[in-house]
Amino acid sequence: MSTLKFDLIVIGAGPGGIEAALYAAKRNIKTAIISATKIGGRATWGSLIPSKVWLASAENAQSIINASTFGFQNKETPVLNMDVLRSRIKTQSSKAAQLYENRLVEANVDVFYGMAKVTGDKTVIIEKEGKETVVASAKHLIISSGSAPIFFPNIKPNKDHIIAPKIAPGIEKIPDSILIAGGGVTGTEFAFAFAALGSQVTIVQAQNQLLPRLDAAICQRYETHLREAFNINIIVDTKVSAMKQIGQKVVTTLDSGEVIESEYGFISIGRKADLSFLENPSDLLLTPDNMVQIDEYCRTSQKGIYAIGDLTGAPMTANKATMQARIAVSHILHGAESTLLPAHNIEAVYSEPPVASIGNMNEEEHAEFISKSLNQLVKPNIWNEAAGFLKIKIDTRSGLFKGAAGYGKNMPEIMAIIQTAMNNDIAYRDIYKIPFAHPTFSEILSF
Amino acid sequence: MSTLKFDLIVIGAGPGGIEAALYAAKRNIKTAIISATKIGGRATWGSLIPSKVWLASAENAQSIINASTFGFQNKETPVLNMDVLRSRIKTQSSKAAQLYENRLVEANVDVFYGMAKVTGDKTVIIEKEGKETVVASAKHLIISSGSAPIFFPNIKPNKDHIIAPKIAPGIEKIPDSILIAGGGVTGTEFAFAFAALGSQVTIVQAQNQLLPRLDAAICQRYETHLREAFNINIIVDTKVSAMKQIGQKVVTTLDSGEVIESEYGFISIGRKADLSFLENPSDLLLTPDNMVQIDEYCRTSQKGIYAIGDLTGAPMTANKATMQARIAVSHILHGAESTLLPAHNIEAVYSEPPVASIGNMNEEEHAEFISKSLNQLVKPNIWNEAAGFLKIKIDTRSGLFKGAAGYGKNMPEIMAIIQTAMNNDIAYRDIYKIPFAHPTFSEILSF
Repeated sequence: MSTLKFDLIVIGAGPGGIEAALYAAKRNIKTAIISATKIGGRATWGSLIPSKVWLASAENAQSIINASTFGFQNKETPVLNMDVLRSRIKTQSSKAAQLYENRLVEANVDVFYGMAKVTGDKTVIIEKEGKETVVASAKHLIISSGSAPIFFPNIKPNKDHIIAPKIAPGIEKIPDSILIAGGGVTGTEFAFAFAALGSQVTIVQAQNQLLPRLDAAICQRYETHLREAFNINIIVDTKVSAMKQIGQKVVTTLDSGEVIESEYGFISIGRKADLSFLENPSDLLLTPDNMVQIDEYCRTSQKGIYAIGDLTGAPMTANKATMQARIAVSHILHGAESTLLPAHNIEAVYSEPPVASIGNMNEEEHAEFISKSLNQLVKPNIWNEAAGFLKIKIDTRSGLFKGAAGYGKNMPEIMAIIQTAMNNDIAYRDIYKIPFAHPTFSEILSF
Repeated sequence: MSTLKFDLIVIGAGPGGIEAALYAAKRNIKTAIISATKIGGRATWGSLIPSKVWLASAENAQSIINASTFGFQNKETPVLNMDVLRSRIKTQSSKAAQLYENRLVEANVDVFYGMAKVTGDKTVIIEKEGKETVVASAKHLIISSGSAPIFFPNIKPNKDHIIAPKIAPGIEKIPDSILIAGGGVTGTEFAFAFAALGSQVTIVQAQNQLLPRLDAAICQRYETHLREAFNINIIVDTKVSAMKQIGQKVVTTLDSGEVIESEYGFISIGRKADLSFLENPSDLLLTPDNMVQIDEYCRTSQKGIYAIGDLTGAPMTANKATMQARIAVSHILHGAESTLLPAHNIEAVYSEPPVASIGNMNEEEHAEFISKSLNQLVKPNIWNEAAGFLKIKIDTRSGLFKGAAGYGKNMPEIMAIIQTAMNNDIAYRDIYKIPFAHPTFSEILSF
């Protein structure tokens, strides 16, 4: 079999890999991308897009429930038609994949389907159903094979009443009650979705708060909101020891000894790097968490091989993967001269209201914290979305933002303003001095 | 009567006047504010806040109507309970006024109620029920007495079926059909609101498009959206010659000769500066439109007297008034040394989807236009909000934004990012290179 030659081969066609391929091809790098499944990766077909379809329905349910506030007849929690949800997931995943495909075609990226195996010296064997179909080599590789969910032997989905994000749409109806094992981003988003759709939700979180990377004060307020607005039972500092389906019930045992019965169980205890492209696990240096170790240019321990996205560790967000894609390609083009370096990125949780954060919120010298409440603004009050806080951290010497964390309607969009400021050295006072449109949520930064 | 002495007297307690008083008092200027009505001005009690309460209900109605998309049972257009609307307007106006009052108290601003008359040499007589109650003088005056609606003798509200924004909440039910005279910001917002709440709406606009200040290409797409999504009949280049109520119908005659019958008529043909504070109209130089003439520091033709907000002309937005407030106070403090100068401001229309624009969108040398569609993004598609476009204008030499215009969900919030860039000389490429949170609407700038 002859070996196809490229400047760059990207392994994995999720949001990060696709961005890497596009960003490179548009800069005249001869690029191939290898997709193990349909274009879009797990994000498009199993996690990101499907979860957002759930969340959009949950948000619509909230609007219907809140109708009486706005002068319409009061409604009970509307009943979600699971067939519509499943069909929307399919439609939206296909649409997202189609948009990706169009861009790849337009940018002249070669797309190969199959499992990629890196055989050393930047040669990649592409296998389909266990057979080699293509051998390709490149000056540079970018690995973006993503991550897969973790399950423990005694806490595993069973395709019936014990479910996980990817298989959740398979349920027949919204559960009366559900216990969610794991209070990270995924667990928290689904906790909101199920609660807004009518379930009695319990989250069990091993760490001392939901969303462990989030500023503690903001997280505490957010947890209070989830408890009060959605009646979610949040149990922290506690691990799930066992989860078993007995008849049509799920019985969950916590390490505190407590036993909780619910109609469904949901597992979202974490994700691990997908290292299936490696023939020998020792080919690349890994971190103690079994993530691929990279430097500030996304270089792995092997020359010419870059890694981006989930397999480089937390936060596992599509926008971080996209940024890393640009950083890696920029380094391929410009080497150490590259000016595109790791910069401040947003982490968000798309519950309603959502959570978003950027930078670091640790107490430190020369740092001032300012907290603002959405209920001081016209827009959130009139739209009945006034629950929420934003906390920002300012360097008292330069006036620059050091970080921000908040929850509330539109928080990930508000954070885009702060991200723009942080990545361009704009001081808070220079944001503050020009009023944003009135009434908007952005005004939280200019009042 | 002894004369009270201040450093600054602000005439008019709408959003602009309040910001001027707060901004000054926090900088140790001894400040008084004179409020003709309750704190908050016409914006709070008659126009801005009430219209936004209408719009919030209209938006909620849309969510209910779109429920089937998200997997819930389909609903007819929900029927708005006018009592709830009226009560919400009262609550929200009071809440906004209370927030203003709290801030004024906290900042130690002296508040006087009554009609202000400027008698020359920066002395102000405050009258209540025609009687002088207080005489006050100050080194500086800031006039922010706002604007009032214009009516022609033969096109006037009658408190029955011919209405205007302020008295619209008085109607018994949402009209089956309504003709809106005037397609500026107010006419367009109410056209959306009535249509979303179930009315068959016709807008008659004297100029060649709705929202005459908006980029023509964006406006055309927006008009098409209003026609297709809300079945709004938009008649441009046409004036209303007469509007009469006959029985329970309103008969409108256009200058084209066409006669249109509707259940209600609505008048929003423009606003004029409120110059009631002037004893002699010749005391201040006016523009040909009868607006108060000001320079870049908001100075009027009289030394020490500044004017801000609606009475200085279009665009009549609260955020422009707020910015002018800061500019005027900064000039009072720092004179020509003031670095706070008129900068790029957003104009927005809060229909759903909303419209927003900034800067100028004229064709010119060294200008490049880039158009993007919301339907290329994940968030708008999944949330069923993909109708919308953003057009940006970039200086090809510097890469800086020259302007932007768009319509679509969250457009006024997206515009805050562009406003931040424009006011801080950040190039489009420097916004583009760092991905915003995924999925958000802000990504329209970073894909």
